[in-house]
Amino acid sequence: MTERTRTALPAASLDTLFRTARTYNAFEPAQIAGEVVRELYELAKWGPTATNSNPARFVFLTTPEARARLSPHMSSANRARTLAAPVNVIMAYDLNFAEKIPFLFPHKPEAAAWFARPEAAQEAAFRNGSLQAAYLMMAARSLGLDCGPMSGFDPQGVNDEFFKDTSLRANFICNIGHGTEENLFPRLPRLPFEEACQIL
Amino acid sequence: MTERTRTALPAASLDTLFRTARTYNAFEPAQIAGEVVRELYELAKWGPTATNSNPARFVFLTTPEARARLSPHMSSANRARTLAAPVNVIMAYDLNFAEKIPFLFPHKPEAAAWFARPEAAQEAAFRNGSLQAAYLMMAARSLGLDCGPMSGFDPQGVNDEFFKDTSLRANFICNIGHGTEENLFPRLPRLPFEEACQIL
Repeated sequence: MTERTRTALPAASLDTLFRTARTYNAFEPAQIAGEVVRELYELAKWGPTATNSNPARFVFLTTPEARARLSPHMSSANRARTLAAPVNVIMAYDLNFAEKIPFLFPHKPEAAAWFARPEAAQEAAFRNGSLQAAYLMMAARSLGLDCGPMSGFDPQGVNDEFFKDTSLRANFICNIGHGTEENLFPRLPRLPFEEACQIL
Repeated sequence: MTERTRTALPAASLDTLFRTARTYNAFEPAQIAGEVVRELYELAKWGPTATNSNPARFVFLTTPEARARLSPHMSSANRARTLAAPVNVIMAYDLNFAEKIPFLFPHKPEAAAWFARPEAAQEAAFRNGSLQAAYLMMAARSLGLDCGPMSGFDPQGVNDEFFKDTSLRANFICNIGHGTEENLFPRLPRLPFEEACQIL
């Protein structure tokens, strides 16, 4: 059994993860090493998913050629910043994720049947694939990197270009790198506790 | 403009967030103070959402009376652990989140119209509400707390009990507290990098 620390993170870590983290529109041009990409996943993979289903699939675009395949499918507002980022991640999920349940949930392989209906598979893949995409962004910030997530793109175009004849579907796109203050807007407000939360 | 640290978190923080964190089935009985609940949100709220839409709504159940309203709607496997946890969070989202876009995205209030179609609102609320639920779980771990997320419940029952005649919808349920090793299973495997990721 693993040792638990059960102490809060240092204040500087809370800043890095949440309080001073920003969505960056521009990044330093330096490449992100393949080992760092791998480390991102090796952290994010530990985040919880229903039935340990792990439906997320991550496609890391690290070359100009790969970015050129993505850029026509980005909205015009997002295209230039996507081409300029060191890494674009296609945050995707696999509609056939249940095929891996016998490996991932070995004490109850019959749980794969819970996702037999296409609607159930789609809902679980979208929910848990989104959770895992958030874990990947938090992992990036944990490693001192910055993120620029974007929903402004043509999912059908990305699916046709990268996932044709497969069960993978694009969820959203995220640039990753070391952010710069270029085109960094003042921080937008958040909802006060009373508008977003209830304590019962 | 905020100062950036751009350094990786200490290894112990990576352990707390990812590497040694577990989904707990049992928790110490001590209550979680209201200020801690508030701090959870005050960290999680900074996570990114599309169009800064912040569609998540969090309902923290902290009393036996509130837990008793939830428990009939949990699956039988999840009921006892839900009643025993110090806090249950209904991770929800608001289908009418776009009403707050003029406050949250003040430089472009007309972006609210992007979510006028019910299908577009549902998809954005589900995606971004799930991201925010993940941020809340990471915030809990950041504060030295543990999580026990569960999808095994009756969403319609929870919606009728807590959100009747509103635009809020339950996404999933998460217990929060200080985890104990009671009923803690050996850790389940994760997909190797090569099965979950591509580098292009």
